[in-house]
Amino acid sequence: MRAAVMRDGRIVVDEVPEPAPGPGELLVRTLACGICGSDLHMLTHGRRWAERSGEAGAPIVWFDAARDVVMGHEFAAEVLETGAGVEGFGAGDRVVALPMIPRGEAIEVVGYSNEYPGGYGERMVVNSLLTLPVPNGLSTRVAALTEPLSVARHAVNKAGLRRGEGAVVLGCGPIGLATIAVLRADGHEDIVAADFSPMRRALAEQLGATVVVDPAQDPAIAAWRRRAAPATPLVIFECVGVPGVIGGALQAAPPNARLVVIGVCMESDHIDPLFALLKEISVQFVFGYQPEEFADTLRALAEGELRVEAMITGTATIDGVAEAFAALGSPDEHAKIVVEH
Amino acid sequence: MRAAVMRDGRIVVDEVPEPAPGPGELLVRTLACGICGSDLHMLTHGRRWAERSGEAGAPIVWFDAARDVVMGHEFAAEVLETGAGVEGFGAGDRVVALPMIPRGEAIEVVGYSNEYPGGYGERMVVNSLLTLPVPNGLSTRVAALTEPLSVARHAVNKAGLRRGEGAVVLGCGPIGLATIAVLRADGHEDIVAADFSPMRRALAEQLGATVVVDPAQDPAIAAWRRRAAPATPLVIFECVGVPGVIGGALQAAPPNARLVVIGVCMESDHIDPLFALLKEISVQFVFGYQPEEFADTLRALAEGELRVEAMITGTATIDGVAEAFAALGSPDEHAKIVVEH
Repeated sequence: MRAAVMRDGRIVVDEVPEPAPGPGELLVRTLACGICGSDLHMLTHGRRWAERSGEAGAPIVWFDAARDVVMGHEFAAEVLETGAGVEGFGAGDRVVALPMIPRGEAIEVVGYSNEYPGGYGERMVVNSLLTLPVPNGLSTRVAALTEPLSVARHAVNKAGLRRGEGAVVLGCGPIGLATIAVLRADGHEDIVAADFSPMRRALAEQLGATVVVDPAQDPAIAAWRRRAAPATPLVIFECVGVPGVIGGALQAAPPNARLVVIGVCMESDHIDPLFALLKEISVQFVFGYQPEEFADTLRALAEGELRVEAMITGTATIDGVAEAFAALGSPDEHAKIVVEH
Repeated sequence: MRAAVMRDGRIVVDEVPEPAPGPGELLVRTLACGICGSDLHMLTHGRRWAERSGEAGAPIVWFDAARDVVMGHEFAAEVLETGAGVEGFGAGDRVVALPMIPRGEAIEVVGYSNEYPGGYGERMVVNSLLTLPVPNGLSTRVAALTEPLSVARHAVNKAGLRRGEGAVVLGCGPIGLATIAVLRADGHEDIVAADFSPMRRALAEQLGATVVVDPAQDPAIAAWRRRAAPATPLVIFECVGVPGVIGGALQAAPPNARLVVIGVCMESDHIDPLFALLKEISVQFVFGYQPEEFADTLRALAEGELRVEAMITGTATIDGVAEAFAALGSPDEHAKIVVEH
């Protein structure tokens, strides 16, 4: 089949082996697949992530960066064929799936695997137990946003925000925007968001941020502190993932703030622990989501609780994936680009 | 009065101005005062802490390192004189006190102040509302341990350990030893402690650690993981406070571990956020304690729930403070030295 392939740190279009469904698996035709910031990082830092992941003891069967990888883990698809023992699905069903294939005690990640091609290819194999039908009426391209919205849903769940607590969202890329949308859907109305890009700031406002600032002019935490009643508890969502952001947040945070780190910083970082100590800051690192959070996110999208279509600022075909990656490097052109097949 | 004074980054014995109690304050005669690791740090990093504390917006009236400071904030004392409006205390009462003097919306720290000399001087002024009588039968030198034990009490309270969860204590200086004692008093029986010093390892065992390791031979978290049933939740107490320890703990921690940082690292530090992300680690920085935690600690010491006298490995006089600081620089000679007057 045709696919946009990660090869030697570049994206090239080529023919790759056809995936075949094993027992409990589904062969699906990719309909839409969002391009994730992690995919961009992976081109440059893939080897480092694989090493770190191994050292961290994360139960992931990691890909060999020297071999082809078809990325893409934010997808909606149509069932073509069911593997042995699959129940409840048939050809033609429109589905979304968690991009995870259990392999003994570890998992293989669809889209970050040498064995399981992701959504930048024409066809994929997914695990039927981690697959959900797309409810009628939900557009395919919005269904493809279930995965990144689930990341935000999980982060907000882990943050344990109570009504009346404040939220600051650092970075309005797709994950920052998704976090704003989830916070708003949960009824939180005190959300200060920050991004250097005017386009992303406009999107943040559209998705429900109360106040949106350009951190070059007005740092987000300072802006929140000017607005908030004294001693209002604050949760800061770090959705940037570059060195220095965690340390800056620790420095600017008010006493007892909780920092939730969603941004995936793949490089070494520096912090000044004294700031965090003196203010008794807590830091919760989050990653991924639970299957029930994925299912709840799909439901919330289908029922219109989460309205996030504005996040999609462009589409591409398999042949346009490399160009889309390049365009996403400049944050003022795009938020989320969806590859449509 | 005579005092061991911090002057130009050294400890010298000299005459300093006699403190005088204001309204609500007590003039006390110092009986015993423990030497805290932070006092040692302060000689080298005092200026940096003052700057950071100001930037962090901590509500502390910070000392000017260019002027004299009489350190010492872990004290027991005897009341000499009561300021205007003080009730419930009289001359001759044996007391301990939180080393804090409210000053408008900020606090002055007794022992880290240019105005309020600490327990390395003959006399001090303390706030009567933050002062507690030492119960009969509790020795003065153990009463002086109320302050460092309160730091550990607060850290363990913030950690929210449940029965059956594991604990790893990194570093068996006084705060690590205090943490072990508090955990044990709370009924936790799965405590792995680590220190490079054989003497401190022996003390850790005496104070209640289940397993004690030399991290040069057997890293503590690895030792705990070998012992623990899979998926047992782990809380790691960082009681070292030098660069690299937080990052090392994030790397070695099992998934979902909670790291409680008590060690005061006054320098910049580096971490690898990816380790923490992939395992969804949480980090709680802690500092100080609440007045009720201080009171509860004094009660626990007086009732024999906390047995920590073994921590005291030496005593000194005002004239011996500089030498005691030097001795504490070598972790194999001492844990806690108490200055007795």
